[in-house]
Amino acid sequence: MRIDDLQIKGRNGAPLKIYQNPEWFCFGVDAVLLSGWARVKKGENVLDMCTGGGIIPLLLSAKTNAEHIDAVEIQTAVADMAKSSVRINCLDGVINIINEDIKKFTGRVKYDCVTCNPPYKEVSGGAASQSVSIAISRSEIMCNITEVCECAARNLKYGGKFFMIHRPERLTDVLCAMRSCGIEPKRIRSVHSYVGKPPVLILFEGRRNGFAKLIFEKPLVIYNENGTYSDEVNEIYGRK
Amino acid sequence: MRIDDLQIKGRNGAPLKIYQNPEWFCFGVDAVLLSGWARVKKGENVLDMCTGGGIIPLLLSAKTNAEHIDAVEIQTAVADMAKSSVRINCLDGVINIINEDIKKFTGRVKYDCVTCNPPYKEVSGGAASQSVSIAISRSEIMCNITEVCECAARNLKYGGKFFMIHRPERLTDVLCAMRSCGIEPKRIRSVHSYVGKPPVLILFEGRRNGFAKLIFEKPLVIYNENGTYSDEVNEIYGRK
Repeated sequence: MRIDDLQIKGRNGAPLKIYQNPEWFCFGVDAVLLSGWARVKKGENVLDMCTGGGIIPLLLSAKTNAEHIDAVEIQTAVADMAKSSVRINCLDGVINIINEDIKKFTGRVKYDCVTCNPPYKEVSGGAASQSVSIAISRSEIMCNITEVCECAARNLKYGGKFFMIHRPERLTDVLCAMRSCGIEPKRIRSVHSYVGKPPVLILFEGRRNGFAKLIFEKPLVIYNENGTYSDEVNEIYGRK
Repeated sequence: MRIDDLQIKGRNGAPLKIYQNPEWFCFGVDAVLLSGWARVKKGENVLDMCTGGGIIPLLLSAKTNAEHIDAVEIQTAVADMAKSSVRINCLDGVINIINEDIKKFTGRVKYDCVTCNPPYKEVSGGAASQSVSIAISRSEIMCNITEVCECAARNLKYGGKFFMIHRPERLTDVLCAMRSCGIEPKRIRSVHSYVGKPPVLILFEGRRNGFAKLIFEKPLVIYNENGTYSDEVNEIYGRK
């Protein structure tokens, strides 16, 4: 177990930190991009599904004026690590880590916003080369896209917003699952490693009970030609 | 009525031409992009739906070794103009213009490929500022996305390919309609006026009875920074 500095200030002005276990899934640029994509307004309450080590609620607590963030993680040991990260950042009053299965989770309240950086890969017959914990974080072993969207729909207010990131190859799966759960895709953005390359990730915003009208935004490019982060990614990382 | 030079050579070596009526819908860059996107192999038979003045079958006859192209248009006067274009290019043995409603159309054979540059706009209550003919070409008055996909599915061979272009705001509608009709989206490409701008069009390839695995290709950019056509678009136009 190690403590990483997230290189932005938390709500109490101190540097935001996170516990990570290198033997479990460690967050990537996608979690950071999702935290920059989610438009959470002052006073809103948020649910983060498949929270893992709690990277999304931690970043949202620093980047937004969310009132409260509930964050659900199915793996007990991972949820315990997330709770430790909440504690060292003195965020006990803001973030509540819940060790539950999102397939059954129903919050005590309906949420203004739901976020999710879900496992990306469909479960195949092939043997996993990684630990069980990493496999659960990466592959749809414990929940799939439809179950993610069902949990979002069940827990969102009327008109509430759902923010997700996923792989381009799952685009049809995501859009159809959102719509079939009553969450209409409203905003989408492709994420590219470099200008002119195929997208590596897609950011989604849906609205519960929204009407059909999708805005497809300009591409988000991660790296400049020389391999350094683009201005926009630096801004999302809080290094502007 | 005027005759436009399509600036590529037809099958008989003579410049390909098309009749256009400025009071009806005149084709745009999207038809040209779709003709470059459709992967039609030698000997394959093709169905073009909503063919209008026949731009797609004319371009495909020149750019591919398609064996035969049936092309369906609901407006009789527009279909007659398309027939005239087939005749002046001596393509009577290759292209067959059919004045029918795609909602009812079933070909005598199943096709290897189906193409469609459909009307883009959902029908709203607002009064149309254009002619009825143009309104039918632009808006979903006579057929919508679902009916387009149903006709494609009904007329495609097992494993046959469906190529379509549509607006980004209709992305969810297209992907969900394709899947629900048994045509799995397999390849997609966003079309941008300039680098770094939001997409203005999306190219789709689906496969009847295909398995779910989407390839999201690199962006297609229409214009260089100085406003001239990009190399790729010039190549699609046949001006390489």
